[in-house]
Formats: sequence, C-alpha cells, structure tokens
Amino acid sequence: MTTRIAIDCMGGDHGPSVTVPAAVSFLASHPAAHLILVGQEDALRPLLGAEAGNARLRVVHASEVVGMDESVALALRNKKDSSMRVAINLVKAGEADACVSAGNTGALMAISRFVLKMLPGIDRPAICTALPTARGHTHMLDLGANVDCGPEHLLQFGIMGAMLVEAMEHKERPTVGILNIGEEEIKGNEVVKAAADLLRASGLNFIGNVEGDGIYKGEADVIVCDGFVGNVVLKASEGLAQMLSGALKSEFRRNALTTLAALIALPVLNRFRQRFDHRRHNGAILLGLKGISVKSHGSADVLAFTHAIARAYDAAENKALDRIAARMGQLNAAQLTMGETA
Amino acid sequence: MTTRIAIDCMGGDHGPSVTVPAAVSFLASHPAAHLILVGQEDALRPLLGAEAGNARLRVVHASEVVGMDESVALALRNKKDSSMRVAINLVKAGEADACVSAGNTGALMAISRFVLKMLPGIDRPAICTALPTARGHTHMLDLGANVDCGPEHLLQFGIMGAMLVEAMEHKERPTVGILNIGEEEIKGNEVVKAAADLLRASGLNFIGNVEGDGIYKGEADVIVCDGFVGNVVLKASEGLAQMLSGALKSEFRRNALTTLAALIALPVLNRFRQRFDHRRHNGAILLGLKGISVKSHGSADVLAFTHAIARAYDAAENKALDRIAARMGQLNAAQLTMGETA
Repeated sequence: MTTRIAIDCMGGDHGPSVTVPAAVSFLASHPAAHLILVGQEDALRPLLGAEAGNARLRVVHASEVVGMDESVALALRNKKDSSMRVAINLVKAGEADACVSAGNTGALMAISRFVLKMLPGIDRPAICTALPTARGHTHMLDLGANVDCGPEHLLQFGIMGAMLVEAMEHKERPTVGILNIGEEEIKGNEVVKAAADLLRASGLNFIGNVEGDGIYKGEADVIVCDGFVGNVVLKASEGLAQMLSGALKSEFRRNALTTLAALIALPVLNRFRQRFDHRRHNGAILLGLKGISVKSHGSADVLAFTHAIARAYDAAENKALDRIAARMGQLNAAQLTMGETA
Repeated sequence: MTTRIAIDCMGGDHGPSVTVPAAVSFLASHPAAHLILVGQEDALRPLLGAEAGNARLRVVHASEVVGMDESVALALRNKKDSSMRVAINLVKAGEADACVSAGNTGALMAISRFVLKMLPGIDRPAICTALPTARGHTHMLDLGANVDCGPEHLLQFGIMGAMLVEAMEHKERPTVGILNIGEEEIKGNEVVKAAADLLRASGLNFIGNVEGDGIYKGEADVIVCDGFVGNVVLKASEGLAQMLSGALKSEFRRNALTTLAALIALPVLNRFRQRFDHRRHNGAILLGLKGISVKSHGSADVLAFTHAIARAYDAAENKALDRIAARMGQLNAAQLTMGETA
C-alpha cells in the first residue's frame, strides 16, 4: 500500500517557497512516499523544476488561501476551496493518508474537526508534539487546543498519547505522567487530581505526577496537561532556548579572541545545536480525529517543514490512527458494558 | 535605621553548613546590615569562627527544626520553637525587617501567613521571583502558592508585583503582562480574560497578554499567572537549562580535541554561565503578608543562599512592603467609596 500525504502548500509564513522545496526534499529521502501538493497551481508549478514529472508527486489546484490571522469562523464558513480545506478533504476522501499544514492553527483545527470528525469516545482534539529530553524525547499533549479540560479529557489525552508512541516508536506500554506541581499541601488542582485517579485506573502504564523539570529529565514517554499549561510551557521553552543560544552567540562574538575561540569550538557547538534543533521536532499531530492532520510551525523553513511532512508520513505508515481508534473502541465497549450492568 | 534580617539557619537540604557561611559572606559585602541567625546554637556557633564576636551578628536559639518533607499542618501546630517559626516571629515582633528560609515551602508559607497575617485587601499570598530575560529580568508571580486563582487574585498579584518592582528597582510604572496563550479563537480561559479586564482598569501599566516565549524576551517587567502555571513554567525552565548545559558539557568532553576547544572557550563559557547562573536569582518573596518572608531554593549552596539573604535585605531596605500596603490601601479605600455610592 502506498502512503500518500497531502500538503497545504499555501500555509505558513513563507508559503510555497518553503513548502514546495520541502516536499521535493522529502520525496528524495523517502523513495516509497507519494505527495499531493495542494494550492494555487500557478504558484506551485514553477517551483517544481525537474520534479514536475515525478510520478510520486501530484498537484491539486485550490483557488483560495486561509490567511495566518484570518478568523477561524470565516475560514471555516467561506473558504471552501482553500488549500487547507482541500488537503483535509483529500484525507477524508481516502486519497491521502495524512495532511500537513503550516497555516493558522485555529483554522486547521476547526476545519480538520469539521471535515474529518472526532473518533468515537474522544470529546476534543489535542495537539501533541515530541520534545527533546536528557534521555531522548517525550510526547506532550495538549499544547493549546483545549484551554479548559476536565479529568476525562486528560484521560483521553493519555490514551491517545500512549497509543501514538506505541505505534510510532514501537514501544510497548510507554510510561504516561501527568504534569503537576509538587509543593506539600498544594499538590495540583482538583482536575489534575481527578485525572490522575482516572489514569491510574486506565490500564495505561501511568507513573503519576511529573513536575516541570521532569519533562526535560525524560521522566515519562507521554506527559498530559491541559492546553493552556502545555502551550505556555512549550513557548516558554522555545523562548528560553532562544535567549540562551542568542547569549552564547553574543558572548562568542565579544572580541577577536572570543571569535577565535568560537572558530575552534565550532564543531562542538554545531553538534550541540543540531542535537536540540527545534526544526527537527517540527510537526505536531492533531489527535482524536478520524484522520491524521499535522501542524507545522508557521515560521518553518525548508528543513523544519520537511520534518513535519516526515512526521505525518511516519504516523500514517505506522497506522497510529488505527491503534488509537482500536483502544478507544475497547474503552467505549467496556463503558457500554458497565453501563448495562449498572 | 538599621536593617535586620532573620535567617532560619536549619532549613534547606544542607542546613547550617550552607546558611552560616552564607550569612558570614553576606555580612562582609553589606557593611551596614545586621543578621539574626536562628537555630540550634550548638550547631551554629562552631561554624561562626572569627565572626562569633561580630557586633552585627546575633544568634537566637530555636530548639526544633521543620523537616523538608514534614506535613505543613503538623509543622504549624506542633513546632512552635522551630527555627523557621522563631525567625518569622522576629519579623512579627519588629526585631527583624525580613526573614529568609531554605526550608519546606508549604510550611514557610503557612507559618508566615499564620504569624504575619495578610495585608488588608489581599486574599492570598503569592510567590514572586526574578527571572533572567534577553533584556535584563522580569518578575513573575505566582509560582506555586495558589493553584486555583480567580480574576481578582491575578489582579492583586499584578498590583503586588508592580509595587515590588517600583520599590526594588526604582522603576516608575513598570509594565505588567498576563501570561496567556495566543491561538486564534482559543485565547485563554475565562479567568485570564476576566483578570485582563480588571488589570486594564487598574491604573497599572498593563500591556496585555504575554505568551510563554514573551517571558524570556523580556516583554514585561511583571508577569502574572496562577501558581500552577507559574510553578510548571519555572521548573520546566530549570529542567531545560540543566539539560542544555549538561549536553553542552558532554559535547565538550567528547574527546581530546573537543576538550582542548573547551579550554580555549572557557572564559566565554564561564561568562555565559555566570550570566544565567540561577543561583544569582535565588530568593523568592512571599508577597501579600504584613512582613517580608523570603524563600530560598532548598538545594541552595552558599552563593545561592547569600543571594537569597541579599534579596530579603533589598526588599526591606527599599520598603517594598510599605509600597504594596499603600497601594492596597488606596484600592481598598476606592472600593469602599464605590460601595457607598453604589
């Protein structure tokens, strides 16, 4: 079976100038993959060059574009022929196994949800991404789709995250933790406490609370939290990493002597930079839908967007969705049975 | 007027072996300061050495110690002669202008609140600390005292934080932001929206939402958030910084060549490390009480604990408390008047 990924080529801060070269680069490194480039043909074709004749590449025209700051409601209602919508439609129609967009997050979520629908038993979609840790990486969700979550939503996030990691990393019973604070007497709010109880009873490999520093210590394979906390932590981490790398650069540029030191240290600094290059972690999956929809950073460059395509491809290849759906099916069946006995 | 700081010398992971040398070091660099060392005399005296006769140093015996993992309720009820309690009592009695402890956060908060009482108009204490940013530093609160906050609490945090910065940094009308997420359609939860409205009407220099990355970009002088989010962000930042610095070290230790590069880059790396040394930001102030109580990291070393003492001293010297109390007094008076007209 061929795996096909639909790409919203018009989305993101840079549009086709990033998405098309990324698609071409992805095809070169994934010889079995097929891509469907969605967008304004006039804008896409000239960027394809020699790849225009590649049999694994198809262009699908879409006349409209969802703006980065456009109202979600308007994008959903009025832009029926946007590149984002058409890419998602291809997933719905079974012509693509996943889609990728660097466009407006709110619109991508709303349109994905409207077109693809939720999996039975999941109330809300969640945004999940991989973060580097001292031991490898961890998957955290939700990262901003849900601002106010109940305990049952955090349970669903735990199940979806665990199934995603099982599918994509071939890791049996990955550990699941819940983000919490550790102070005596004030250990977390009521929602987190109730969610921990549900997770403990869920059959998942639940390890309990993970504090903020536990994220980067790699204490759990999957960390669940509400979208407000997750979004703030993710962005604060990006901001801190940027500040530190900027300061390190400026210290090395202080004078001729430090510049010389930088030259000598360059291979080490480059290896360090590469290890934590956030572009290699680009590509957040919207979980809970009957289809795979991947969100790239809006500001992604070619390397970063290539990684987002790869993320969608890996999720589709590894049948992440089937695994999540199967587990939710079991859970729903169990709940129905419980309902009958009750 | 002499400024006197009471130190809980038994608190923290290392107790007197850190707190006493830190006190001695602080006295040497602050020739006008007076310190009161509180704890088991037998444990403190031998560590004083030549400083035992220093007229600016007084030892006050306290027979008990609050354990780092001790129940807050038990510490509050049973340990009436703990070093922590006695140090706080000295503030209450006016014998000290502030106290510092590296002990159990929950106990310090509960005992400070019980002994010192809240300022009129403040419902809950908040933990506030300075964080380094690309432009200097910012003050963030709450960092874990309050897990569930209402809009009026976030307003109070904003007022207290702004007054603290005015007093300690001699900065008129510091900017105040509220931590939020920026996604279209899902901009924050209801509490944050309502708090932003209150802050906008407060007369503070309120600049609106700050996203996670805005903390380290230095977008505001004061950033308010609930204690759950603040605590998670603070600890996640510590964890990320540790992971990055650990990885940088290990890259430089990879082989003989990289070790040589490290030696050459050492002055640069040291300057970088110093700039973001979290020990230099040690010392979080518990705001909202009728007295200054400063919490040091439990794992603080001598340098870090010296900074926590300095933080308490600066807050006392700059009359931070008076400024907060005065502003709350104005606010309370205004609310009373409004109540009468209504």
